Amino acid sequence: MIKTIVLNNRPTGRPTVLDFKSITEDIELTPKDGELLLETNYVSVDPYLRGRMNDAKSYIPAFELNKPIQSGVVAKVIASKNINFTVGDVVCGMLSWKTKQISTGEGLLKVDGSKAPLSSYLGVLGLTGLTAYLGLNQIGKPVAGETIVVSGAAGAVGSVVGQIAKILGLHVIGIAGTDEKVDMLKTKFGFDAGINYKTSKNINQEIAKAAPNGVDIYFDNVGGPISDAVLFNINNFARIIVCGAISVYNNTELPNSISVQPFLVRNSALMQGFIVSNYADKFPEAIQHLSGWLAEGKLTYTETIVDGFDNIPNAFIDLFDGKNKGKMVVKI
Amino acid sequence: MIKTIVLNNRPTGRPTVLDFKSITEDIELTPKDGELLLETNYVSVDPYLRGRMNDAKSYIPAFELNKPIQSGVVAKVIASKNINFTVGDVVCGMLSWKTKQISTGEGLLKVDGSKAPLSSYLGVLGLTGLTAYLGLNQIGKPVAGETIVVSGAAGAVGSVVGQIAKILGLHVIGIAGTDEKVDMLKTKFGFDAGINYKTSKNINQEIAKAAPNGVDIYFDNVGGPISDAVLFNINNFARIIVCGAISVYNNTELPNSISVQPFLVRNSALMQGFIVSNYADKFPEAIQHLSGWLAEGKLTYTETIVDGFDNIPNAFIDLFDGKNKGKMVVKI
Repeated sequence: MIKTIVLNNRPTGRPTVLDFKSITEDIELTPKDGELLLETNYVSVDPYLRGRMNDAKSYIPAFELNKPIQSGVVAKVIASKNINFTVGDVVCGMLSWKTKQISTGEGLLKVDGSKAPLSSYLGVLGLTGLTAYLGLNQIGKPVAGETIVVSGAAGAVGSVVGQIAKILGLHVIGIAGTDEKVDMLKTKFGFDAGINYKTSKNINQEIAKAAPNGVDIYFDNVGGPISDAVLFNINNFARIIVCGAISVYNNTELPNSISVQPFLVRNSALMQGFIVSNYADKFPEAIQHLSGWLAEGKLTYTETIVDGFDNIPNAFIDLFDGKNKGKMVVKI
Repeated sequence: MIKTIVLNNRPTGRPTVLDFKSITEDIELTPKDGELLLETNYVSVDPYLRGRMNDAKSYIPAFELNKPIQSGVVAKVIASKNINFTVGDVVCGMLSWKTKQISTGEGLLKVDGSKAPLSSYLGVLGLTGLTAYLGLNQIGKPVAGETIVVSGAAGAVGSVVGQIAKILGLHVIGIAGTDEKVDMLKTKFGFDAGINYKTSKNINQEIAKAAPNGVDIYFDNVGGPISDAVLFNINNFARIIVCGAISVYNNTELPNSISVQPFLVRNSALMQGFIVSNYADKFPEAIQHLSGWLAEGKLTYTETIVDGFDNIPNAFIDLFDGKNKGKMVVKI
């Protein structure tokens, strides 16, 4: 028995469970020469997947209708005709939303559950951590003593960005959507200040108060009005890492914002879109730092682990309501 | 008799002649030790001056009310107590809107009217040419074979950007506001294609047609809806030089545009504000290239020369109606 989740419709606006379909097949999978059979342990759900559900030109191809959705997956090798993998190996890679699947092994990394929890290879030691580390360093070019604002700060990427920025000696301000999350930023992740954008009467002024020396780096996970407010507080030569725009991913019409151009000219500021896969040559260096900090206890993380293969679509949809704290992962 | 133009009011929206005041003083100016007396020949009017008329934080201080406005000026030394300058020297620098003025000589460059017309030191061999050359090279990082779109293409900076891009082997598309200007882009400045944004029914599609391989570099002089349309056509790793935003300089409310963030993420694109004064160390290299190309006839330019000191405010205001072709200069 193998279960698969396919894209049933291209969502209009916010995705619903009807945009997904679960298929159960009563088949046996047997690897051919060079292949391996995998059993899924953990599935990553991420905001960027929403973009792949549209039929639009982007940095990765759109998902096809009635085909399985793919994301980061941790899986166990349960049969192997590939000399590089043996039964019992645990691997991580971009795989389908299936309970079991055949793979050629291409693009799969072996991971070690004794060094860190398996789910962390989808989070702080996976693309999430890499995104935080490389986005901050490659575009943000942080310098000790500077001030950074992180939006979506309690999310998977944001919480790691803030902690790395603290390790590097920055003044760190996080923006999140509940008092509980804002509290966690300060108590658990060591941010210097937190702002609840949902209860704030004037985010622009609250940022100004929390950043008396202005904002040198903005790590933008959300887009929309929060990002507009940060622009009013940027310093000369500010760097804005545009990592995500969850606030507008579900818009059916093109979202409007204040024009960024006058702010960029006035401040000689830089704004750059960040996609982690462009920096694959820097992954080993990043993983080394991330796992080192994790082992030293300098880096902590939060996961929201949802149980059950059938709950993958709901877990994904919940991302857009901010129901996750840190990385959202589904345990099979 | 010395005439001075001062800022009378901070303009609200589009400037009017009432925002300026002309003062005539019946005085004699005599340089002290180390000073020189200058008689103004040419005054540069530039869109960026509009920003300095607001009382807002920016990269250069705001003009003060009832104080002379300053811009690029070419002037002749008519008396000197400074050993570095002699009577008859012609200089160029940031000076006041005055028919005659005293200077310490600081920041003034001697220019040679026999090598190039004096007005060109305010244009193609001045900050205009430097802005075009350095903005394109430092942020745009052009590669032969790539496609560039230039907005405000018939303007002072835009027309030089397009010509340099052609020299460097790019496919060059210009956007301007009259058929006459668009024609000039192609016949006089050698652009590959031109688009009249005022008569175009769908700029987005016209750009797509003129740029079959997509847009790698966008040199943005205007902001607003034209810049929005370019975003739909950018390639992966596109570079956007935000040099000016003349379309919104006179807005009294914050201008809105489509959100740039999703475009930047999707395309790993970069958008950076450019201010020429940040690149002063590169001026000599740039001037060498610009004057070389000018001498070889590879670079041409257009000027709109307005006559008479009293017409400076009108010439400045006319910039916002696109009445200039190329660099707008007032001859005294």
